[in-house]
Amino acid sequence: MDVAPSDRTRVRRMPKRGAYDRAAIDAILDAGLLCHVGYVVEGQPYVTPTAHWRDGDYVYWHGSSASRMLRTLVGGVEVCVTVSMLDGLVLARSGFHHSMNYRAVMALGRAELVEGDHKLHALKMFSDRLVPGRWETLRPPTTQELKATTILRLELTEASAKIRTGQPVDDDEDYALPVWAGVLPLSVIAGAPIPDPRLAPGTPLPANIAQFTPEGVT
Amino acid sequence: MDVAPSDRTRVRRMPKRGAYDRAAIDAILDAGLLCHVGYVVEGQPYVTPTAHWRDGDYVYWHGSSASRMLRTLVGGVEVCVTVSMLDGLVLARSGFHHSMNYRAVMALGRAELVEGDHKLHALKMFSDRLVPGRWETLRPPTTQELKATTILRLELTEASAKIRTGQPVDDDEDYALPVWAGVLPLSVIAGAPIPDPRLAPGTPLPANIAQFTPEGVT
Repeated sequence: MDVAPSDRTRVRRMPKRGAYDRAAIDAILDAGLLCHVGYVVEGQPYVTPTAHWRDGDYVYWHGSSASRMLRTLVGGVEVCVTVSMLDGLVLARSGFHHSMNYRAVMALGRAELVEGDHKLHALKMFSDRLVPGRWETLRPPTTQELKATTILRLELTEASAKIRTGQPVDDDEDYALPVWAGVLPLSVIAGAPIPDPRLAPGTPLPANIAQFTPEGVT
Repeated sequence: MDVAPSDRTRVRRMPKRGAYDRAAIDAILDAGLLCHVGYVVEGQPYVTPTAHWRDGDYVYWHGSSASRMLRTLVGGVEVCVTVSMLDGLVLARSGFHHSMNYRAVMALGRAELVEGDHKLHALKMFSDRLVPGRWETLRPPTTQELKATTILRLELTEASAKIRTGQPVDDDEDYALPVWAGVLPLSVIAGAPIPDPRLAPGTPLPANIAQFTPEGVT
């Protein structure tokens, strides 16, 4: 499925880096752990980092019902959700052609509040994105906890992906220069799990946590 | 030096996680490679990821003079620059107390255009942030390249940092549950540099690139 680029999401700069197919958009949303949510209060834009997850045609995020970001967006105002991953520094022979390798998605629209039974389902989906199977092992949420949690979702109707990969593209005459050029690859890695010192005695490290990878199960 | 919290940057949720001293703010800005710039066009917020660097009391970013983000911000409109780093997943005994360890800065204000001789200096500062000493090894920028590059900066007068570290904070009665809880630490690492296949023959890998670390020289 494709998401037709609107005048607002069409990738203008470096259009060859743009993608509008849902497979490309979904892969980036699914690999990221953190989105940046943009919203406006009294003319001032704010950008709040928060965890996100995707389920079907929607990107979800959540937080305390008391947060400014969530209180603003519950009102159905315009939002921008951006997910980006930095994959490398691209070192060229001139400052001008230095670049970065990255994957990014920008999605626009109005968020909708997730309510009722769907709220519990959404939280389970989030938990499964992080550590598949963990939800069933947890103390279930209380009514009060669910009430204190606001979940929003944005339908992926107006979204675009932008991806850069590979080596620098230098000016032809600069390739002869004795300047080291290439890519410094960057990636997010998970270190060894650090158990809570207050762990109940004899609680083993489950396989699904030991096997955690930041970009999730593919 | 402290930055007095305004009504707009005061950390409302989890105020104990907030910091307004410049040392805390600068350390986060200096450790990050990518910021997310929030701006508004016709009521729609946009969030654009881009490289940033700090010099003194300002956070800088740049890009093509043709980009929508930069063309909008040159007009002196309100902007939000957010830099965030995800340091770990915090796995609690209930879904509700799951969290993330992170460092984030949010800075508000109006960006100013960097012009004249300061433009060249700013680009050198950016290069030095990535790979100290590299600037002198590059083919110098042309007048045309400088013209095609827009550099903006935002003074750090209205900014706050938010930091979470450490283990989950569970409900007292949940500590007895046989659920593994703890932190999954996350970090960004640089892999081995990948030379451009078009490297001039005999060009060695310089020490300043071999020694690159994502969070920079401390």
